[in-house]
Amino acid sequence: MKYILLIIALTLLSSNTYADRLTSEPIKIIEPANNLNMGMVELGKKLWFEPRLSRSNFISCNSCHNLAKGGVDNLPSSIGHEWTIGPINSPTVLNAELNIAQFWNGRARDLQAQASGPIDNPKEMAFTHTLAVETLNSIPQYKNEFTKVFGNDMITIDKVAMAIAEFEKTLRTPNSPFDLWLKGDDNALNQTEKDGYKLFKEKGCIACHSGALVGGSTYQKMGLIKPYYTSNSDVGRSAVTGKDSDKFVFKVPTLRNISLTYPYFHDGAVWSLKEAVIIMADLQVGQKLSDDEADKITKFLHSLTGEHPKVTLPQLPPSSAETPKPNMH
Amino acid sequence: MKYILLIIALTLLSSNTYADRLTSEPIKIIEPANNLNMGMVELGKKLWFEPRLSRSNFISCNSCHNLAKGGVDNLPSSIGHEWTIGPINSPTVLNAELNIAQFWNGRARDLQAQASGPIDNPKEMAFTHTLAVETLNSIPQYKNEFTKVFGNDMITIDKVAMAIAEFEKTLRTPNSPFDLWLKGDDNALNQTEKDGYKLFKEKGCIACHSGALVGGSTYQKMGLIKPYYTSNSDVGRSAVTGKDSDKFVFKVPTLRNISLTYPYFHDGAVWSLKEAVIIMADLQVGQKLSDDEADKITKFLHSLTGEHPKVTLPQLPPSSAETPKPNMH
Repeated sequence: MKYILLIIALTLLSSNTYADRLTSEPIKIIEPANNLNMGMVELGKKLWFEPRLSRSNFISCNSCHNLAKGGVDNLPSSIGHEWTIGPINSPTVLNAELNIAQFWNGRARDLQAQASGPIDNPKEMAFTHTLAVETLNSIPQYKNEFTKVFGNDMITIDKVAMAIAEFEKTLRTPNSPFDLWLKGDDNALNQTEKDGYKLFKEKGCIACHSGALVGGSTYQKMGLIKPYYTSNSDVGRSAVTGKDSDKFVFKVPTLRNISLTYPYFHDGAVWSLKEAVIIMADLQVGQKLSDDEADKITKFLHSLTGEHPKVTLPQLPPSSAETPKPNMH
Repeated sequence: MKYILLIIALTLLSSNTYADRLTSEPIKIIEPANNLNMGMVELGKKLWFEPRLSRSNFISCNSCHNLAKGGVDNLPSSIGHEWTIGPINSPTVLNAELNIAQFWNGRARDLQAQASGPIDNPKEMAFTHTLAVETLNSIPQYKNEFTKVFGNDMITIDKVAMAIAEFEKTLRTPNSPFDLWLKGDDNALNQTEKDGYKLFKEKGCIACHSGALVGGSTYQKMGLIKPYYTSNSDVGRSAVTGKDSDKFVFKVPTLRNISLTYPYFHDGAVWSLKEAVIIMADLQVGQKLSDDEADKITKFLHSLTGEHPKVTLPQLPPSSAETPKPNMH
């Protein structure tokens, strides 16, 4: 009798019904954003699309993290001021709040710490924080909106970053087929996708790619088992920690919406998701995947594409006579 | 008795009540768009925001005709492929359908004829029509959408332009304060704005700036009474007609939403609307405006800013393995 009860208990535990997938599976669902300051979100959305935060008045956050394109630019590395080609692949802004830290090397602890970085990066928006604030200060409608949101009309780069971050927090992609399956809808995934997920766990990919982001929670060496060869000179996390052991260590990227965020890796060297899967399995977990296995894992990864936020373009307030003029060079 | 009747009739004719402003005033209201093919509009919206219509995959129609910024880029002249600075100021796409023709020199008869131009202009999107069509052809979701809209899956540059044009037709800005006044709301304009409009007519600005667009219906020499000095080398309409008499002749720009579409003139040389008013009055109609007159006309012009279309960003379909890769150079 005891054995029978044990068998029943074990069967229940492993039955993977909707009641326990949410807790037992190593991948967690993406929850919609909540507890947001909606006034700050609206201000942040304006700043997100605001090219006057760049020296040329041509580049905005959305230029490289395009919300019509999975929150990326689908370029190997981004185009910045005066057509400077940036050093690294643009990571997606979708669900970015859930990352352990921001940027590939984790040099910003959160979205707010990240948001002001590109503004004064000479290879990106090439402005200065002082001029960005001066620009916003010169525009009466921004003055009013900052006052409404922050209680006084003193505009600072920290407030700018805080508002952009608040908008970015809205950019979640819930209800992917995989999440619906996690929530109990057995038909949300077909058999190939389920097989792919099983392989994804069995082959060890899940060791780094787990949690709500299916990644984004640890740093790992690119080329853990075998070296990764690239012409990209980025040294990764050692630029932050100063440690030699952190050379070529990067934040494990999220696999959420990965079917949209090609090309892949920090150097944007690989355009095919299946090829990226094969390379990662080989270099990171020492697994030679068969063509069929790679296909199935790739199909599972496609099921991680969620519902994208509906973003209505803001109307940016006009400049005044005091607004600094764009500088093309 | 006859005289009394005549006086009553004349009084009624000139009484400017809402019943007759719509017909008697030389400026007409902006009607909302109608009779549109909504499937084509949706496809056109995707193509409008589609950077894969450019060689770099970085520039879309919206880069220079930014719908968050009055349908322009607010730059003296636009930034194109490899940071090429274009030859002329980007005209607004808002209400553009109502123009007599498209581009400053009128070289495209309508929106459809215009829409494919920037795609293969080496200073703008720097692509070829062949590669643009090949790109769209390689993306299954576009194939499906073209089939749904056009009845077959043959994608051509003409269909691309037709769809973009259909989307652009939605970009009307009705219900400006001035239009509400035209429709009979006496309080939609304050006294200064009404005085400005009176001056605008009395000084002769109305000769070219009339109709629904407050412009856009004729070509005129830039510097009609006195010469206009500029470092911009564009010869204007003579490039289209081959006539020497059309040198420095440009399409009269719309004044709709003019408070948002700075900097002004084909060379984008003037940032202040009031300064632009003073220069135009001097060079085009030989009127030296007082500071007060220029102020009033400028305030009237601000009343031409209408309700902007609510544009929700599309989700662009992902590339396939066959999609041509971006070319940054």
